[in-house]
Amino acid sequence: LRNGYPEVIYSPGKTLNQIKGIVENMLARSTGNILASRAERDVFDTIKSITPDAIYYEEARSVVVKREEYKTTDDYILVVTAGTSDIPVAEEAAVTAMVMGNQVKRLYDVGVAGIHRLLGNVPIINHAKVIIVVAGMEGALASVVGGLTDKPIVAVPTSIGYGASFGGISALLGMLTSCASGIGVVNIDNGFGAACMASKINKL
Amino acid sequence: LRNGYPEVIYSPGKTLNQIKGIVENMLARSTGNILASRAERDVFDTIKSITPDAIYYEEARSVVVKREEYKTTDDYILVVTAGTSDIPVAEEAAVTAMVMGNQVKRLYDVGVAGIHRLLGNVPIINHAKVIIVVAGMEGALASVVGGLTDKPIVAVPTSIGYGASFGGISALLGMLTSCASGIGVVNIDNGFGAACMASKINKL
Amino acid sequence: LRNGYPEVIYSPGKTLNQIKGIVENMLARSTGNILASRAERDVFDTIKSITPDAIYYEEARSVVVKREEYKTTDDYILVVTAGTSDIPVAEEAAVTAMVMGNQVKRLYDVGVAGIHRLLGNVPIINHAKVIIVVAGMEGALASVVGGLTDKPIVAVPTSIGYGASFGGISALLGMLTSCASGIGVVNIDNGFGAACMASKINKL
Amino acid sequence: LRNGYPEVIYSPGKTLNQIKGIVENMLARSTGNILASRAERDVFDTIKSITPDAIYYEEARSVVVKREEYKTTDDYILVVTAGTSDIPVAEEAAVTAMVMGNQVKRLYDVGVAGIHRLLGNVPIINHAKVIIVVAGMEGALASVVGGLTDKPIVAVPTSIGYGASFGGISALLGMLTSCASGIGVVNIDNGFGAACMASKINKL
Amino acid sequence: LRNGYPEVIYSPGKTLNQIKGIVENMLARSTGNILASRAERDVFDTIKSITPDAIYYEEARSVVVKREEYKTTDDYILVVTAGTSDIPVAEEAAVTAMVMGNQVKRLYDVGVAGIHRLLGNVPIINHAKVIIVVAGMEGALASVVGGLTDKPIVAVPTSIGYGASFGGISALLGMLTSCASGIGVVNIDNGFGAACMASKINKL
Amino acid sequence: LRNGYPEVIYSPGKTLNQIKGIVENMLARSTGNILASRAERDVFDTIKSITPDAIYYEEARSVVVKREEYKTTDDYILVVTAGTSDIPVAEEAAVTAMVMGNQVKRLYDVGVAGIHRLLGNVPIINHAKVIIVVAGMEGALASVVGGLTDKPIVAVPTSIGYGASFGGISALLGMLTSCASGIGVVNIDNGFGAACMASKINKL
Amino acid sequence: LRNGYPEVIYSPGKTLNQIKGIVENMLARSTGNILASRAERDVFDTIKSITPDAIYYEEARSVVVKREEYKTTDDYILVVTAGTSDIPVAEEAAVTAMVMGNQVKRLYDVGVAGIHRLLGNVPIINHAKVIIVVAGMEGALASVVGGLTDKPIVAVPTSIGYGASFGGISALLGMLTSCASGIGVVNIDNGFGAACMASKINKL
Amino acid sequence: LRNGYPEVIYSPGKTLNQIKGIVENMLARSTGNILASRAERDVFDTIKSITPDAIYYEEARSVVVKREEYKTTDDYILVVTAGTSDIPVAEEAAVTAMVMGNQVKRLYDVGVAGIHRLLGNVPIINHAKVIIVVAGMEGALASVVGGLTDKPIVAVPTSIGYGASFGGISALLGMLTSCASGIGVVNIDNGFGAACMASKINKL
Ligand SMILES: Nc1ncnc2c1ncn2[C@@H]1O[C@H](COP(=O)(O)O)[C@@H](O)[C@H]1O
Ligand SMILES: Nc1ncnc2c1ncn2[C@@H]1O[C@H](COP(=O)(O)O)[C@@H](O)[C@H]1O
Ligand SMILES: Nc1ncnc2c1ncn2[C@@H]1O[C@H](COP(=O)(O)O)[C@@H](O)[C@H]1O
Ligand SMILES: Nc1ncnc2c1ncn2[C@@H]1O[C@H](COP(=O)(O)O)[C@@H](O)[C@H]1O
Ligand SMILES: [Mg+2]
Ligand SMILES: [Mg+2]
Ligand SMILES: [Mg+2]
Ligand SMILES: [Mg+2]
Ligand SMILES: [Mg+2]
Ligand SMILES: [Mg+2]
Ligand SMILES: [Mg+2]
Ligand SMILES: [Mg+2]
Repeated sequence: LRNGYPEVIYSPGKTLNQIKGIVENMLARSTGNILASRAERDVFDTIKSITPDAIYYEEARSVVVKREEYKTTDDYILVVTAGTSDIPVAEEAAVTAMVMGNQVKRLYDVGVAGIHRLLGNVPIINHAKVIIVVAGMEGALASVVGGLTDKPIVAVPTSIGYGASFGGISALLGMLTSCASGIGVVNIDNGFGAACMASKINKL
Repeated sequence: LRNGYPEVIYSPGKTLNQIKGIVENMLARSTGNILASRAERDVFDTIKSITPDAIYYEEARSVVVKREEYKTTDDYILVVTAGTSDIPVAEEAAVTAMVMGNQVKRLYDVGVAGIHRLLGNVPIINHAKVIIVVAGMEGALASVVGGLTDKPIVAVPTSIGYGASFGGISALLGMLTSCASGIGVVNIDNGFGAACMASKINKL
Repeated sequence: LRNGYPEVIYSPGKTLNQIKGIVENMLARSTGNILASRAERDVFDTIKSITPDAIYYEEARSVVVKREEYKTTDDYILVVTAGTSDIPVAEEAAVTAMVMGNQVKRLYDVGVAGIHRLLGNVPIINHAKVIIVVAGMEGALASVVGGLTDKPIVAVPTSIGYGASFGGISALLGMLTSCASGIGVVNIDNGFGAACMASKINKL
Repeated sequence: LRNGYPEVIYSPGKTLNQIKGIVENMLARSTGNILASRAERDVFDTIKSITPDAIYYEEARSVVVKREEYKTTDDYILVVTAGTSDIPVAEEAAVTAMVMGNQVKRLYDVGVAGIHRLLGNVPIINHAKVIIVVAGMEGALASVVGGLTDKPIVAVPTSIGYGASFGGISALLGMLTSCASGIGVVNIDNGFGAACMASKINKL
Repeated sequence: LRNGYPEVIYSPGKTLNQIKGIVENMLARSTGNILASRAERDVFDTIKSITPDAIYYEEARSVVVKREEYKTTDDYILVVTAGTSDIPVAEEAAVTAMVMGNQVKRLYDVGVAGIHRLLGNVPIINHAKVIIVVAGMEGALASVVGGLTDKPIVAVPTSIGYGASFGGISALLGMLTSCASGIGVVNIDNGFGAACMASKINKL
Repeated sequence: LRNGYPEVIYSPGKTLNQIKGIVENMLARSTGNILASRAERDVFDTIKSITPDAIYYEEARSVVVKREEYKTTDDYILVVTAGTSDIPVAEEAAVTAMVMGNQVKRLYDVGVAGIHRLLGNVPIINHAKVIIVVAGMEGALASVVGGLTDKPIVAVPTSIGYGASFGGISALLGMLTSCASGIGVVNIDNGFGAACMASKINKL
Repeated sequence: LRNGYPEVIYSPGKTLNQIKGIVENMLARSTGNILASRAERDVFDTIKSITPDAIYYEEARSVVVKREEYKTTDDYILVVTAGTSDIPVAEEAAVTAMVMGNQVKRLYDVGVAGIHRLLGNVPIINHAKVIIVVAGMEGALASVVGGLTDKPIVAVPTSIGYGASFGGISALLGMLTSCASGIGVVNIDNGFGAACMASKINKL
Repeated sequence: LRNGYPEVIYSPGKTLNQIKGIVENMLARSTGNILASRAERDVFDTIKSITPDAIYYEEARSVVVKREEYKTTDDYILVVTAGTSDIPVAEEAAVTAMVMGNQVKRLYDVGVAGIHRLLGNVPIINHAKVIIVVAGMEGALASVVGGLTDKPIVAVPTSIGYGASFGGISALLGMLTSCASGIGVVNIDNGFGAACMASKINKL
């Protein structure tokens, strides 16, 4: 149905046996790529034992059963992070977008505490077709990027931080109430969902 | 800078005098359209007293100083609501999108309690370039529309309802955790922000 | 007193020794069935070591000491889930309802993200006497089932999901504020309580 | 479709003109009764000016356009309240249930602070087919009634109280976590929804 | 200073070495009893290795270095629990009150789901000088006991339960908003604090 | 039943007509005093029109129908406030306690921001039998008084303050987690409930 | 005691009569300035009727009884706001700081949605001794200013905004979790408190 | 850039390999001190294996690579705690402030439950240039210290406590709403951030 897109398995809460069954079923039923998100190494090992086409993108915690080449686009999705700790979520977004057939660029660790690093990267921001901003703590990066560009922004709050970060709630609220207009927000740590939204936009 | 876009005034918390000053300044400084959002009738009267070009979109609580024709697009943004009470927020989105130069279509009162009305409207949903879903209470409409189409969706929770609706929080959480992927959420009642996001996408 | 119903033990927070004592006491005191809910395997092993009548419904995390045949009914309770991860809670409901003497049918993995699967199952929904809807994340399934049928619905939010799912709060709020009327909601993950309510209704 | 049931209008957020239009439309289109819930007196006056069949149940804030006699049942729904302040919500439930064709009995002001009054009324509780318990503050009444009877209970938390009542949240949480099993909870102050659920059960 | 009272150590967050130091210091400095609350077995072992007077009240998670006989009173403090899972908190209260020189009686597992067991125990309630009510989930027991007696009540919410119990918040809110007047509430699981309050009252 | 105590009416949410009826009924049925709490002036006027014995304690928002002399006690209840704005709640407590037959003393405006004023009043604190501490904002006064005395303390958080005071939640949480043991907390602004608790203690 | 500082009256919750009494008392007792914060015009009129020295700073909602010249400092406190709506809170801070004897500079409406206006003002930021940042919505301005300077920052969240702004909670959380270190946060809308903190720092 | 200050690594969420890389890079690039905060022993071991200059401040969970002597100041920062459990956070603040070149004094375990110990230490409080108050539970210590001195206070809520402490939220709210003016609050457990703020103030 969802032409060109991989089939997707959300790994948490499934036993290795269940995942094995689902993948075997997909392998039998179709010929496209398969993406298992939020996959720990044992999930990868399980899938690898069924098919040699399995690849593990460790930092993204994503397994791809790559049965056909990824497509790509002329336009690119830019994935931006505030800090180092936001990278796993950003990689989930980047790998998902790539598997969905998009060109992806990365701009990591440009948080507003050292704003000059961000200001030195305005061109790569403005040449993107759509931008995914990944940030925890107060999530201010989404507002600042929104103030620097007119491109559509998909914002991903992360659960990074402690105390009043409240597992990502502060970043989530900050992004929802951003003074920069035109920011669509997804669930905390939801790199996958951000990539889905960005991919739909990038391919328009 | 933001070429073709209106200049925007957020009316709440500004005195009529302040709004008068801001509009006069904009009239002197540029020639484009001006949009005053969240404008009560006295805001309209104040602006109308300065310039005959002021139009009041009452249900959208929006004033436009229309100094040039609205542009439009071949593709359209579809604005969908669950109930009647969501219409003011939907109209804020629709009028904002129109003033920003987009073709806009409306599909109102298709909430999931009477799901057959929604299912009878799948074509207008699937032909849109981007969809704004406006819903209060449990916000389930965003998930259901997301299950019916692959178009990008901008979801607007509304503060409609009582008790455990918590002024829009339930709808907001429902949209953020939607099982349908690729939904970007904006602030509660933020029709304006949804239109900004949708307009950027529609014009790609 | 509660004629025909099993005696019930809520296992968490009890030591294996305490459970042993309680079961021995029940075995001595009466002749009906016994249900230990939220039972891990060691609880089953403990009870099995006292009586050969113990059966373990693993996915439902329920132990039954089956000393008499389960009764059944002509009407059935339908247990519906949105996803695979909701199945343990659904099974707790289904096994509890069965032990309480009800005919039970299951309709699993019919969440609104793929709404056509649900729409293909309207007859089994409309022929039920009462429906238990089990869903996590945004809990939209309760509203959609409520829009498809006039049968009484008992809704069970699950703690499935991450981030803004808040351990089931989003699903709970969504079900409480559902635009479909006539839905009674029980505590998060409370398959047992849903079965109690549904059993009372089914036997009227 | 929903045979024998009234058509329903939820009044808040609708202008008198909109309500006039909706009622005129319903009067033209069908011959059954019409229920306008959460109706202030001006809503009643508006409807009365169109049709002499309008009746105002003031305490229930409900208008009925009574074009046919209410049906009734042999079994009854019992509506119970903890205090006097819960009566408007209870009356919304009672009137809604009556208009939907049910026999309704009332047992008001039997809160647990004076538990002997409740204990003196066990027979009327146990002879009901289904019980609606309406209570604010800590909502303990639902648990206590649940401990006295095996009938299905629909619990309605009310927004009565101050401080840590949090507009009904305390009562809502108390009812959701009730130690008495088999209680289905509806939204805060939602007498209408409780009556829908109870009516479905009462007519089985 | 606090004459006749034990010296108290709150064990969590202290290393065994720190506890050893504090106890040695107290042993050297004074001759009264010492109470270590929230003490796991290793805390007891540590204290026992210093002094043979150490006693472990396991269910209460309390160590007493008993260097003089406990005093007692003619009046008694009654400790009541709703369920079995509330007993550890109740025992913390009971042991603390005993060590502070009070006569203590217990009435456990008399929750409102089986209210007849409670109603069969009214005399022991009414003969107490002060009552400590320990309950989790919805905490309704405090209201019901408050409706049965005029004695001062100290209510302790417990963190028992799951889902909407929110770690004791529901019980806490229920007790604070109780329709029975004259209930003083302490922190969630705070059996120690309840005993302090009750002891002060019992000795007046 | 509740010998020597006044009969009590909680005024909010009752019409003047309802209050009139309740008071007339009480006047006919018994000869003791009547207390109407949270009473605005129109409630007083209504009661005064029925009986000349009505007295209005304005700051306490309390009406007493004084048909017999207040009793008193040798021991006294001390009511303490942090600021001036806490006085209405404190007066509700003081008047309620007085009507219930207790000697009452007041110590107002001794908040910890000017702690020397509090430290200059230690004797009146230590000679009380029980102390009611009324404080808003952070509620620190309860902890500090608790550190100065061994008397039982009933703490009343008030809804005074703005922003992060959250209508009394901050004070409530501060009092519940007080590092001083033996503090019983009542609902936000619940001067009446504090007086009930204190009166029971004072009369032991 | 607090030498050189004005005496302060917090106006809300005080009657005009009480304020009159307090001011008359202060006028008689000392010779310094008096500051009435959160003062509506009627508070000013009341004070003006007692003493001709009363000045009304309307936007700051502050009355000063100016009986001696304000002192000033060589160093200055800089008050920065994100938007226009934050100005009343900023003015409360600025006027308070001025009355406390500080040189004050203002930099208003430099929010991050138009970050270039802020970047054009780095010198006035870096020459301040201490900076008060006033911002609502997501409060990102505090983080961005913190990334541009090493001066101590006092951050004031404002209750500006709607929906997920939650009356200032989002801004508050954003400031507390700011990735820029060395930001001290005060209560929502607490311009007065920010000025107290900044004044203490500025005068070191 | 940040002259005289150490370079800082926030350890959580970084692998030992990543930390090794960052430290090696810093060692090569500059000659100043390095501070790794929130460092468990394995982080220390890793850094020690690269450079002999690494020192582990265990209670503060801080590693310093000390390549030059710490500077100091004539004025001192005073770090105050309410209890023993607050000491790790206090030590994080104290070590951070020391490494940043400040004289630091400590005053631990002076909580308000035993207020006389605090009152016996007023001189060391009043001679400080700036005070860091570290407290959990209800956080009342910040208010009390604020009532005793005019020095600027940086308040750090800690996550110490249970139940209604809510992981530091109660202390946080108490500090934000403190009746003592001029208190700047940092995130829960953020000793590092408090030291940054205090150091900036101390060096003015
Ligand atoms: N008091 C009420 N509380 C909650 N829902 C209601 C209430 N009254 C009516 N409804 C629902 O609102 C629907 C009508 O909404 P509307 O089309 O906006 O008038 C009905 O079908 C009911 O499901
Ligand atoms: N279980 C408990 N819950 C709450 N507070 C306690 C508990 N046990 C002891 N405390 C308090 O903690 C103080 C001792 O704390 P510490 O000096 O840290 O050992 C005692 O004086 C009590 O006030
Ligand atoms: N706008 C304000 N926000 C917070 N606290 C304030 C404000 N204005 C005054 N205060 C505090 O309130 C105290 C005066 O309170 P009161 O004695 O009730 O007038 C002053 O000493 C300040 O600490
Ligand atoms: N304990 C701490 N709490 C909060 N922030 C910290 C802490 N330690 C370091 N930081 C901040 O984290 C930054 C380093 O982050 P990173 O680049 O991820 O190592 C520093 O510049 C500090 O601003
Ligand atoms: Mg970094
Ligand atoms: Mg409708
Ligand atoms: Mg599935
Ligand atoms: Mg009553
Ligand atoms: Mg039990
Ligand atoms: Mg005062
Ligand atoms: Mg502006
Ligand atoms: Mg201590």
